[in-house]
Amino acid sequence: MDYRLEQDVLGEKNIDNSTYSGINTVRALENFDLNSKSVNLNLIREIALIKKAAAMTNKTLKFLDPEKADAIIKASEEVIYGKFDYEFKLSAFQGGAGTSTNMNVNEVIANRAIELLGGVKGDYNLVHPLNHVNMSQSTNDVYPSALRIAAIRLIRKLSDSLSSLQEALQIKENEFSDIIKLGRTQLMDALPMTAGQSFGAYSKAIERDRWRIYKVEERLRQINLGGTAIGTGLNATNKYVFMMTDIIQNLTGLGIARSDYPMDITQNCDIFVETSGLLKSCSVNLLKISNDLRLLNSGPRGGIGEVLLPKMQAGSTIMPGKVNPVIPEMVAQVSLRVISNDSAITMASSMGQLELNAFTPLIAECLLESLELLERSVTLFKDKCINDLKMDEDRCLENLENSLVSATSLVPHLGYDKASLISKKALATGKTIREILLEEQILPEDIIDKILSPTELIRTHIPGK
Amino acid sequence: MDYRLEQDVLGEKNIDNSTYSGINTVRALENFDLNSKSVNLNLIREIALIKKAAAMTNKTLKFLDPEKADAIIKASEEVIYGKFDYEFKLSAFQGGAGTSTNMNVNEVIANRAIELLGGVKGDYNLVHPLNHVNMSQSTNDVYPSALRIAAIRLIRKLSDSLSSLQEALQIKENEFSDIIKLGRTQLMDALPMTAGQSFGAYSKAIERDRWRIYKVEERLRQINLGGTAIGTGLNATNKYVFMMTDIIQNLTGLGIARSDYPMDITQNCDIFVETSGLLKSCSVNLLKISNDLRLLNSGPRGGIGEVLLPKMQAGSTIMPGKVNPVIPEMVAQVSLRVISNDSAITMASSMGQLELNAFTPLIAECLLESLELLERSVTLFKDKCINDLKMDEDRCLENLENSLVSATSLVPHLGYDKASLISKKALATGKTIREILLEEQILPEDIIDKILSPTELIRTHIPGK
Amino acid sequence: MDYRLEQDVLGEKNIDNSTYSGINTVRALENFDLNSKSVNLNLIREIALIKKAAAMTNKTLKFLDPEKADAIIKASEEVIYGKFDYEFKLSAFQGGAGTSTNMNVNEVIANRAIELLGGVKGDYNLVHPLNHVNMSQSTNDVYPSALRIAAIRLIRKLSDSLSSLQEALQIKENEFSDIIKLGRTQLMDALPMTAGQSFGAYSKAIERDRWRIYKVEERLRQINLGGTAIGTGLNATNKYVFMMTDIIQNLTGLGIARSDYPMDITQNCDIFVETSGLLKSCSVNLLKISNDLRLLNSGPRGGIGEVLLPKMQAGSTIMPGKVNPVIPEMVAQVSLRVISNDSAITMASSMGQLELNAFTPLIAECLLESLELLERSVTLFKDKCINDLKMDEDRCLENLENSLVSATSLVPHLGYDKASLISKKALATGKTIREILLEEQILPEDIIDKILSPTELIRTHIPGK
Amino acid sequence: MDYRLEQDVLGEKNIDNSTYSGINTVRALENFDLNSKSVNLNLIREIALIKKAAAMTNKTLKFLDPEKADAIIKASEEVIYGKFDYEFKLSAFQGGAGTSTNMNVNEVIANRAIELLGGVKGDYNLVHPLNHVNMSQSTNDVYPSALRIAAIRLIRKLSDSLSSLQEALQIKENEFSDIIKLGRTQLMDALPMTAGQSFGAYSKAIERDRWRIYKVEERLRQINLGGTAIGTGLNATNKYVFMMTDIIQNLTGLGIARSDYPMDITQNCDIFVETSGLLKSCSVNLLKISNDLRLLNSGPRGGIGEVLLPKMQAGSTIMPGKVNPVIPEMVAQVSLRVISNDSAITMASSMGQLELNAFTPLIAECLLESLELLERSVTLFKDKCINDLKMDEDRCLENLENSLVSATSLVPHLGYDKASLISKKALATGKTIREILLEEQILPEDIIDKILSPTELIRTHIPGK
Repeated sequence: MDYRLEQDVLGEKNIDNSTYSGINTVRALENFDLNSKSVNLNLIREIALIKKAAAMTNKTLKFLDPEKADAIIKASEEVIYGKFDYEFKLSAFQGGAGTSTNMNVNEVIANRAIELLGGVKGDYNLVHPLNHVNMSQSTNDVYPSALRIAAIRLIRKLSDSLSSLQEALQIKENEFSDIIKLGRTQLMDALPMTAGQSFGAYSKAIERDRWRIYKVEERLRQINLGGTAIGTGLNATNKYVFMMTDIIQNLTGLGIARSDYPMDITQNCDIFVETSGLLKSCSVNLLKISNDLRLLNSGPRGGIGEVLLPKMQAGSTIMPGKVNPVIPEMVAQVSLRVISNDSAITMASSMGQLELNAFTPLIAECLLESLELLERSVTLFKDKCINDLKMDEDRCLENLENSLVSATSLVPHLGYDKASLISKKALATGKTIREILLEEQILPEDIIDKILSPTELIRTHIPGK
Repeated sequence: MDYRLEQDVLGEKNIDNSTYSGINTVRALENFDLNSKSVNLNLIREIALIKKAAAMTNKTLKFLDPEKADAIIKASEEVIYGKFDYEFKLSAFQGGAGTSTNMNVNEVIANRAIELLGGVKGDYNLVHPLNHVNMSQSTNDVYPSALRIAAIRLIRKLSDSLSSLQEALQIKENEFSDIIKLGRTQLMDALPMTAGQSFGAYSKAIERDRWRIYKVEERLRQINLGGTAIGTGLNATNKYVFMMTDIIQNLTGLGIARSDYPMDITQNCDIFVETSGLLKSCSVNLLKISNDLRLLNSGPRGGIGEVLLPKMQAGSTIMPGKVNPVIPEMVAQVSLRVISNDSAITMASSMGQLELNAFTPLIAECLLESLELLERSVTLFKDKCINDLKMDEDRCLENLENSLVSATSLVPHLGYDKASLISKKALATGKTIREILLEEQILPEDIIDKILSPTELIRTHIPGK
Repeated sequence: MDYRLEQDVLGEKNIDNSTYSGINTVRALENFDLNSKSVNLNLIREIALIKKAAAMTNKTLKFLDPEKADAIIKASEEVIYGKFDYEFKLSAFQGGAGTSTNMNVNEVIANRAIELLGGVKGDYNLVHPLNHVNMSQSTNDVYPSALRIAAIRLIRKLSDSLSSLQEALQIKENEFSDIIKLGRTQLMDALPMTAGQSFGAYSKAIERDRWRIYKVEERLRQINLGGTAIGTGLNATNKYVFMMTDIIQNLTGLGIARSDYPMDITQNCDIFVETSGLLKSCSVNLLKISNDLRLLNSGPRGGIGEVLLPKMQAGSTIMPGKVNPVIPEMVAQVSLRVISNDSAITMASSMGQLELNAFTPLIAECLLESLELLERSVTLFKDKCINDLKMDEDRCLENLENSLVSATSLVPHLGYDKASLISKKALATGKTIREILLEEQILPEDIIDKILSPTELIRTHIPGK
Repeated sequence: MDYRLEQDVLGEKNIDNSTYSGINTVRALENFDLNSKSVNLNLIREIALIKKAAAMTNKTLKFLDPEKADAIIKASEEVIYGKFDYEFKLSAFQGGAGTSTNMNVNEVIANRAIELLGGVKGDYNLVHPLNHVNMSQSTNDVYPSALRIAAIRLIRKLSDSLSSLQEALQIKENEFSDIIKLGRTQLMDALPMTAGQSFGAYSKAIERDRWRIYKVEERLRQINLGGTAIGTGLNATNKYVFMMTDIIQNLTGLGIARSDYPMDITQNCDIFVETSGLLKSCSVNLLKISNDLRLLNSGPRGGIGEVLLPKMQAGSTIMPGKVNPVIPEMVAQVSLRVISNDSAITMASSMGQLELNAFTPLIAECLLESLELLERSVTLFKDKCINDLKMDEDRCLENLENSLVSATSLVPHLGYDKASLISKKALATGKTIREILLEEQILPEDIIDKILSPTELIRTHIPGK
C-alpha cells in the first residue's frame, strides 16, 4: 500500500494515500471504532455547503486567495453531490462534539482541492484543512448550523408527506360517510357513528401534526455561524457573518437567519428537543391510528373485522392464507423508535455544560433518523395501507345491530336509571332494546322508531324530542 | 354511624350519610384503593365549573327546572371554591376514563343541591346526579374540556413565572457585563467571555420556553362539550353547544372555543403530548442552567468557584460549614419529574383506542403535576437562587489568567499548526503564551499586546488585524 | 402564637413552638415550597429506626449518655409508630441529597427526647439533633441505608401479591382447561388453543416477575452505615459499624449486611436502577395481560367478547348499562406510572457526581411509589378482576368455528401453497375449509375429520400423520 | 436483466434472477422501503443455524429427504459464515413479527440449496422455502429462539469486556492508593480520600454490572422451538423438540434448553425488558464514571484538573492545543443510546397482544444494537482512557490544602455548632482551620495535629480520640 505521512499536535501517522481523509479522521476512526451507524450523510452535505459558503465569503473579503477558494468551492460541491460519501464513515456516536466530523469534511475537501490545484494529497501548504477550509469557522458554529439546515430540509419533506396522508384520510372520510358502524369507548360498545367520522378524526390529528412540524421551521432557522468557538465571534468578522447568511440563503433557498445571540445557539439544544417533541406527538397519533386500524381489521372471522386493509404480503410461514397488517405494524415500530429517539435527544440536550453541548453527535443522529424514518413511513402508510383500505359494510351493520347502544337515546325520555334496567335486561335475555320497549309498552311505537334508528343517533340532537 | 341506602345497576349499597358522595363514588373508592395521590383539585374545580355552566344553559333552554338549576349552580360554586375538597379522594390512577371523577362531582353537587332545596341526601328525585347535574353531558366531553381549561390556567401562571425568571437572568446579564471569565467547552478551557454573557444565553433559552408555553394555549382552547359520549353529539343540541361555549368563556375569562370536530377532541390526546413536550423542553433548559450553576459554584476551594450561590440552609449533618446548592438541585429533580411525566403522557396518549382514550386520568395527573411543579420551582429558582447570586471576580480572573486560551488569536497570525505547538509548549513548561512569544521573538510586542488582551477576545473580530 | 428562637450557621429564626421540627426543617420547608407530594413515610420510619439503632449502639459504646440515649430510643420508636407523621411534610423533590429529611427526623426526635427528659423544645443542650441524635452518622450513610430497608420491606409485600396473582391465574388455567378457543397472532385468527393456556402463559410471566423481584433483595441488603459523609468512615468506628449491622438485623428481621466498600454504596445508585428495571419488566407483563383481557372482554356484542370480566361499577354517565373494564385500566395506568418512574430513576441515578448522588430524594420517591402502587394494583387486579373472571364458552366456540385456521394442519398433507389456495377460496366464498376439501375431493373424509378437529389442533403433533 | 417468475397467494412477480431471495423478500423490501438500518446480521446467522438444526433433525426423523436435507444444511452454513450477507437488506423496522426475515432466510437457503442440487433458482419443487427449509417451524418459534441465542453470544462478549474494564479500574485503585485528594459531595468540598478509592468505587459498580449481565443468560436460555405458531406445537412433534434442543446445544456450545411452556416464550417479551434493563443499569454506571472523569479532568488550568486523561486527538478546529475527553464523551453517548433503546424495548414489549408480540423486530434491533455498542465502547473505554490515565498529584494536594474540609474532625471534640462557626470564619477570612484553632487556642497543638492530618481523615475512626 501507498502511504503518506501526516502529523498533528500529538505526533505523526501514516495515512493510506488513497484516502482523502487525513490524520484527524484516521485517529477518530480508531478512537470511535464502535462498528455502528456512521454519521448521517444529510449532515455531511450541509457541512460541505457551509464550507463552500465560507470559501466564497472569504474569497470576497480577500482573506482567502482566489485560486485556493475556487478549489475549495469545487471540492465542497463534489462532497455535496455525494462523490465522496464513502469517505465519511465516522461513528454517529463519536465523542468530541462533532469536531471529528468537521475535521473529516475539512480534510476531504482540502485534499481534493489540493488535487484540483495539481498538488498531491497531504501537501497542506497548498490548501490547509484548518487555515483555509475551516477559515473563520469553528465546529461549534458549523455543526449546529448544518444540523439546523439538514433538519429544515427533512422537515419540509415530512410536512409534505403528512399533507398527503391527511388528504388520503379525508378521501376516506368522504368515501365512508354513509357507512354506519358501532362506536366504541374503552373497547366497549358505545354509540353509532359513521365510518367516515373515524377517518375524519384521524385526519384532524394528522392536520395538527403537519401544522406543528411546518411551524417549527421558524425556530430552526437561526444559525450561529461567525460565533466561532463559544459564540463570542473571536477570529470572525461582522462582514463575514452577514455575507455568510446571505450566501447560505441563496445556496439553500431557505429563510436562514443569523442569530442575534450566537452564544445561545452554541450551547442550548432546546430547539432540537422541541422539534423532536413534535415528532413524538406525531408518532403518538400514528400509533393511535395504526393500532385502531389493526383492531378494526382484526379477524378475518374471529375479530372485529370492520376494516379491510389491503393485503401486502403473505403473513405466515406456517399458517397458509394468513395475511397480517404489516404496514400499520411497521408504522407503529417507527413511531416507537421516534419516541425513544426523543428520549435520547432529551437526555443529551439536558447534559449540555457551560458554553457547549458535547453530545450534539447523538442529538444529530437521533433527530435526523427520526425525521427520515417518519417521512418514509408516513408515505408508505398512505400508499400501501390507507389508499386502498375498504370497509366491510355487512360486518359494520351486523356489529351495530347486535349491540344495545341505542339505550342512550332512552335517557331523555325515561331517565338514566330506567334506561339502565332496560339495557341490563336486553343483555341478560338476548333480546333487543326495541323488543323490550314494545313488550313492556314503555313508549309508543312511533317514538321508538325515532329514537332507535341508527341514522338518528349520529348527530347533535335529542332524538324524539 | 348513620347510613343511607343507594342503588345502581349493579345493586344496593349502604352509604355513610355524612358524605355528599354517592354509590358510584363509593364503589370507585373501593375499586381503586391504591393509597395513592388523589385526583388533582384543579381538575375537580373545572369540572364543577362545567356543571355550573350546564345548569345555566339547561335552565335557559328550559330543559331544567329553574329551582333545580339554581341549586345545582349554587352547589357547583361551593365545589369550585373548595368547600368540599375533602370529598374528592379518588385515586389519580383510577380506571374508567374519568367517569368515576365525573360521577364523584355529580354526586357531591346533587346531594348538596338536594340539601339546598331542603331535601335529604340520596333523594335523587329532587336532584339526580345524572339526569340533572350531568344533563346533556358525558364524561367524555366534560373531562377533556375541564382538563384543557385547568391546563390553560396553569400555563398562564407558568408563563408568568418564566417571564420573571427571564427578567432576573437579564438583570444578571447586565450586572455581570464587565466581569471577564473563562469560557469552557466540553469542560475544557476555551475562550474568554463575560459572566454577563452566560446569563444572557440562559435568558434566551428561557425566553423561548416562555414563548412556546404561552403559544400552546391556542391549541388547548378547543373543547368538545356537546360532543357527549363519542363526539357525535347524541342527546345534546346545537343551542346547548353554542351557549355552553359562551358561558364558559364568561366564567373563566379564557378564549375557550368549541371544536368543529368534537370526535377528534374526544379521542385524540396529541395536544397533551405537545404541551408536555414543551414542558420537557423547558425542563431541559432548567437542567442545563441549574447544572451549570452547580458547576460554576463548585468549591468553595476545590472547584471552579466562580459563581457564589446564595446560602439557603446548612448542608450537612456531619460536615460543619458545608453549604450545598439545594435550590438548583431541587430544580433539577423537578425537571426530571417533568421529563418522566412526559414519558407517561406519551405512552398513555398513544394507547387511545377508537373513540376514546381510557387513560386520560393518568394524562391529567401527570400534566397538571408537571405544570404545578414547574411553576413553583421556577419561582423558587428565581427568588432563592438567581436574584442574589454573585460572581467571585477574583476567582474568575485567576482562572482566566492561568489558562492558555489566548492561543486561538494566534491562528490568523501564525496558522493553526504553529499556534498548537506554542500552546503545547506553554502547557508543558508552565509558562504563559505571552512569555513564549516574547522569548522566541515570534511576534512584535505591540501585536502581542493586542492579540492577548482578554478584552480583545470577547467580540466578533480578528485581534491584531 | 408561641415561638422559640433557634439558630444555625446562617442566623436565627423564630420557630412555632408547637412543632417538634427545628430551624433546619423550617428553612427546608421554605426552600422547597413546591406544594408537592411529601417524603414517603416508609422512608421516614426507616430513618427513625436507624436513629434508634445508633442510639442503642452509641449507648453501648459509651459515646452517648444512657439517659439521653434512652430518650432518643423512645422518641425514635414514636416516630416509627407514626405518632409524628404530621411533622414530615418536606417535599419529595427537595434539594440537598436528603439532608433536610435527615435533619427533620433528627430535630423531631431531639425535641421529643428533650420533652421526655423534662426539657423544653429547642433546648438542644439536653439532646442535640446532630451531636446526639445524628451521632456517628451522616445523611449520606443514613439515607441510602434507610431507602434500601424501606425498599426491601415493600419488595417482600409485592412479592407476596405477585405470588397470589400467579396462583389466581393458575386457578383460571385449570378452570378453563377444556374450553377451546381461537388463538390470535398480530390480532389475526391463528390456531386453536384452550382458554386455560392463555392464563397459563400469563401465570408464567408473573412467576418470573415474582422470582426476579424476590431475588433482587439480595443486592439491596448491603448498607453503608458507618461510611459517614463519603464512605471513608471518618468519625465512626469499626465497632459501631459491626454493632449497627447486628442491631438493625434484629430490629428489622431482615438479612441486612454491611458493605465491604461503603464508598461504593454512597455514590452508586445502580441497584435502584436495577430494582426499578425489574418493576418495569413486571409492568410490561401487567400491561400485556390487562390489555389482553380488555381486548378479549370487548363487546359485549360488537367485540371479541370471549372473556367476561366481573362488573365492578357503572361505566358511563350517559350510556346506561355500559360497564367498562376499569380494573385492567387502572392496572395499565399504574404500569405506565411505574415505567415513567423508572425513567426518572434512571436519569437521576446517572447524574450522580463523584462521591455522592445529589438526587436520591427523587430516586427514593419514585422507587417507593412504584413499589407501593404495584403492590396495591396487583392485589386489586387479583381480587376484583381475575378471581371472578369467566369465559363465554358459546362465544369462544362461535369465533373458532367461523374461522379458517384449520388450514395449517393441511400443510403436512398438501404443502403450503395448496393449503394457501384452499384458505383463500374459503375466505372468498364464505365456505368452510371442510366444505371445500369435500367438494373438491382433496382428501378422504376420515383424514379430514382428524386434521380439522379442534381438539387435534391444540397439542404438539402432526394431525393425520 | 434476467428475471424469473415467482408466485405467492397474492399473485406473481418477476424476480431478478441474480438474487437468492424470492417473492416474499421482494415484497417485503417494497413494503418496508424505509431506507433504514437493515436487520442485525447476528440475528440472521442464528436463524440460519436453526434452519441447519431443523434440517438435521427432520433428516434424522425421516421427514426430509436426505439429499434435500444435506443441501439445506450446506446452504445454511454458508449463510452462517456470512457468504450471503448482502442478501439480507430488509429494514430492521419491518412489520410482520419477523416473518419477512424468516422468509428471507428460507428463500436464500432454498435457492442456494436448489443450486447445490443442480437446479435453477426458483424451482421450489426441488427445495421449497416453506415445505422444506421451514419444515416443523414457524417464525414465531424460530425468531424469538434466534434472538435469544444471538443475545446470549453478545452477552458473553460484553461480560468479558466488563471484566477487563473492572480489572483496569482495580489496577488504578492500587496505583493511586497513596494519592490523597479532596472528596466532593454535591460538587462541594467534602472530606479527604485517596484517588485509589475513586477507582475502587467505580470498580465495584462495574463488578455488579458484569455479574448481572452474566447471570441473565440463565433466563435467556429457554427457547420455544417446536411451539410453532402460537406455542401449542401444531405440526411439530415431541421428538423434534427434544432433538432440536440437543443439536442446537451442540452447534452453539451454549446451555440452550427447551421451554416447558412454549406459549409463554412465544408471546411474552419480559426477558428482553429485563436484559435491556440490566444494560441500562450498566449504562447508568458508565455515565457516572465517564462524567466523573470528565469533571476531574476539567481544565487544564481553569477546572479541577486532578485527573489527566490520555490525549487521543486534537480537540478543536479553532482552538490550537485544546484536547477534549472524547472517549468518555463517546461512552456517555453510547450509554444514552442504550437507555433510549431500553425505552423502545419496554414500549414494544408491553404492546404484545394475545398469542404474539408483533413488534419483535424492533425489540431485536434495539437489544442487539445495545449489546454491540456497549461491548465496543466498554473495550475502547478501557483501552483508550482508563489504562493510561494519570493523576496530577500536585493539583490533588493543592485542592485539598486549600479546602476547609477538616472541620468535620472537630465535631467529636467541639460539637457541630462550634465547628460550623470555625469553618465559617475560615471561609470568610481566608485563613485555614488550623490557623484559627491556634489563634483562638481552642485545642492543644498535638490534638490539632492529629485531627487535621489528611492521612488521619481517610479511614473509619475518630481522629484524636
